[in-house]
Amino acid sequence: MSGILLRGMILPMTAPDHFFPEGEIAIQDERIISVGARGSAPENFVADTLLEYPNDVFLPGLINTHTHAAMTFLRGYAEDLPLMQWLQDKIWPFEDQMTDEDVYQGTLLALCEMIRAGTTTMSDMYVAMHRVADAVLQAGTRAVLARGLMDSGPNGESGLQENLALVRAYHGAGGRRVTVMFGPHAPYTCSGPYLRRVKEAADQAGVGLHIHVAETLDELHIIREQYGKTPVQWLDELGVFGGHVVAAHCVHLTDEDMEILCRNHVCVAHNPESNMKLSSGTARIYDLLRQGITVGLGTDGASSNNNLELFGEMRSAAYQQKLVSGPTALPAYEILQMATVKGAETLGLSQVGSLQPGYQADIISVNLEQPHFYPRHSIPAHLVYSAQSADVRTVIVAGKLLMQERHLLTLDEKQICHSVEQRAKAISRA
Amino acid sequence: MSGILLRGMILPMTAPDHFFPEGEIAIQDERIISVGARGSAPENFVADTLLEYPNDVFLPGLINTHTHAAMTFLRGYAEDLPLMQWLQDKIWPFEDQMTDEDVYQGTLLALCEMIRAGTTTMSDMYVAMHRVADAVLQAGTRAVLARGLMDSGPNGESGLQENLALVRAYHGAGGRRVTVMFGPHAPYTCSGPYLRRVKEAADQAGVGLHIHVAETLDELHIIREQYGKTPVQWLDELGVFGGHVVAAHCVHLTDEDMEILCRNHVCVAHNPESNMKLSSGTARIYDLLRQGITVGLGTDGASSNNNLELFGEMRSAAYQQKLVSGPTALPAYEILQMATVKGAETLGLSQVGSLQPGYQADIISVNLEQPHFYPRHSIPAHLVYSAQSADVRTVIVAGKLLMQERHLLTLDEKQICHSVEQRAKAISRA
Repeated sequence: MSGILLRGMILPMTAPDHFFPEGEIAIQDERIISVGARGSAPENFVADTLLEYPNDVFLPGLINTHTHAAMTFLRGYAEDLPLMQWLQDKIWPFEDQMTDEDVYQGTLLALCEMIRAGTTTMSDMYVAMHRVADAVLQAGTRAVLARGLMDSGPNGESGLQENLALVRAYHGAGGRRVTVMFGPHAPYTCSGPYLRRVKEAADQAGVGLHIHVAETLDELHIIREQYGKTPVQWLDELGVFGGHVVAAHCVHLTDEDMEILCRNHVCVAHNPESNMKLSSGTARIYDLLRQGITVGLGTDGASSNNNLELFGEMRSAAYQQKLVSGPTALPAYEILQMATVKGAETLGLSQVGSLQPGYQADIISVNLEQPHFYPRHSIPAHLVYSAQSADVRTVIVAGKLLMQERHLLTLDEKQICHSVEQRAKAISRA
Repeated sequence: MSGILLRGMILPMTAPDHFFPEGEIAIQDERIISVGARGSAPENFVADTLLEYPNDVFLPGLINTHTHAAMTFLRGYAEDLPLMQWLQDKIWPFEDQMTDEDVYQGTLLALCEMIRAGTTTMSDMYVAMHRVADAVLQAGTRAVLARGLMDSGPNGESGLQENLALVRAYHGAGGRRVTVMFGPHAPYTCSGPYLRRVKEAADQAGVGLHIHVAETLDELHIIREQYGKTPVQWLDELGVFGGHVVAAHCVHLTDEDMEILCRNHVCVAHNPESNMKLSSGTARIYDLLRQGITVGLGTDGASSNNNLELFGEMRSAAYQQKLVSGPTALPAYEILQMATVKGAETLGLSQVGSLQPGYQADIISVNLEQPHFYPRHSIPAHLVYSAQSADVRTVIVAGKLLMQERHLLTLDEKQICHSVEQRAKAISRA
């Protein structure tokens, strides 16, 4: 049994008016047992560790609903190129050279960065996912893992088998810190019959799907030409939307597409920085939210962002929507919800994303004793518009400290940085 | 005489291919005397201080070409409101309560934040500018100061007199760290005759103008209705563009407007985050640059941003332009130029903005020994897309250390933060 007592400001993300200026959180093992004003912890609670930061705000760990973690290997590798040239001449040839060990090391690097940025959960889609799972279990974070699947290349069948093996080996691993989904890449890289098979496999395994949908106008044209429909219509017709689905991007949607997503309770992983950097477009997030569709935030991979932190992503989400929909669109608290409680909902995680008794203790603290947080007119606005990832002081996942005073406790980041440097440079020089 | 020797990577911003992986900069008093590979400092150079950071990159201090520093008082005060309601019900009534001492304290807070973010020069437009000058002289930074002028209210004449007094008292102060411009607010808040008078005063004083131009569609409609022209056409007809002019925002420009700016060598201060957050629009920066117009970057005030740091602003500038003009628009090095050498050009500062012998020693170092900077495929891309202000380790202005290992050496930031907290809260409660 281990107990942690946290003292400071608390923004539990349970309701817009819930805030404790002098609060207290009691953690027993992996769970929160109480959240409230100072002195609210149960009388019989015994803390081994007391973290008292009156100028920090404690909030739920941030949730990255869409990334390709190991693409840290490609951070800054191919910049400022047209999309297809970028993919075909740079990204794909580089990725072809990456080994399973590279994926492992690249994921560890991503997790160093994410923990430093207060991200406690990621939803990852890539290859060699058993090594990604190993990295997550080692780092102590939470993750939803999906093997990227496509049958446009030669690995359709083997990928599906790998995803199945991933479910068997890792779904629920690490005290349920790791869960698994199936990862059909996109409607333009997966055939209709393949998508149906993947969906069937996911249903049999009782897990969800993570898929790219309507990311670019190119995709719309391809699907329109092949099937005479929008990507969302096509996926709906195939029956892909039956269960729990995380649809990444959803940049280009018609009103009817939005109705289909709404009717099927499809959750959207919004990646504003990637969408802007790759010139994919502006997702209709403001409209999606008004329809009651669940939207989480994602960074996408480091090759199109190029960092993996959600504070900037929150800001970019607000900016992009306000630019299109006016200055009142997406208030700060709604953006924070996308990065926390709505992110958890997007990923189907039921006891994560807000701070309440019984929930998993995934908690971060942000140090507000800095010039860019003064005066303290609005804590939510400061977190969205002024904060940076380096302001995160403490990271706890499932009741375990992963970062304290900005020191990583589970990963040897120096060794990881240098390993990735050598491995990535070897590929880029090849 | 004091000498500083810097050792580490150097990105001097003198040309895209200029980079020293193991470099050395020698500083004597306020000036750079040599920049080059390790061992390149003059043989007779004596350093009192050696800063050796092999994993830091040294680059020119960043230049914020448009801000209202003391508006830190309003950070997070009035969020997510329509523009006119925001101004009329919130911002202006709050500002009416601010004293000269508030402006001084608010500017000190802004300077704490800016130094921490590697910003060594700001171009500020506000009121009580003699107190802003005092703050800048105390902080040790560089600044171009303009008294905000408008004759739509009662202070047209007194403001002009204050700006004149500012020129006399502070133009060239602090070893030329402080220079002064005139600050006619905007074509919709200044009458034609008033703009002519201000321009005349600036010409007589031999200094430039800093003015908001074409920021919103509302402004375009007002000027169209009043004068039957675009704001740029109107200012051109008035003769405002004769000398050195910093035109802030320039969001809504016609092709003819761009020709007028180009012909008159008007420099543009681009504020992407403010433009997005207030839903003002997307400036045609890509087009402006292709026409050869000088463009610098600005944060605008903390009330519409809400931080005053340029790393995020660089990123937002790239994102916004790429979203509209495609993924190849504004490569990372061009963005860095906007934040350094082009920023200096925008403000008419001739020996600032790049690292070369004889130039003012305005230099920062960014610590690249962190997960989000690995692997090191591209230093410029990492600085634009991955860096955050907390990565700045060292700040030097005119050869004087203002921040070392993230400790501010000229300002008592704790006292300043708490002073602003009390003062701003007193106003918001009133």
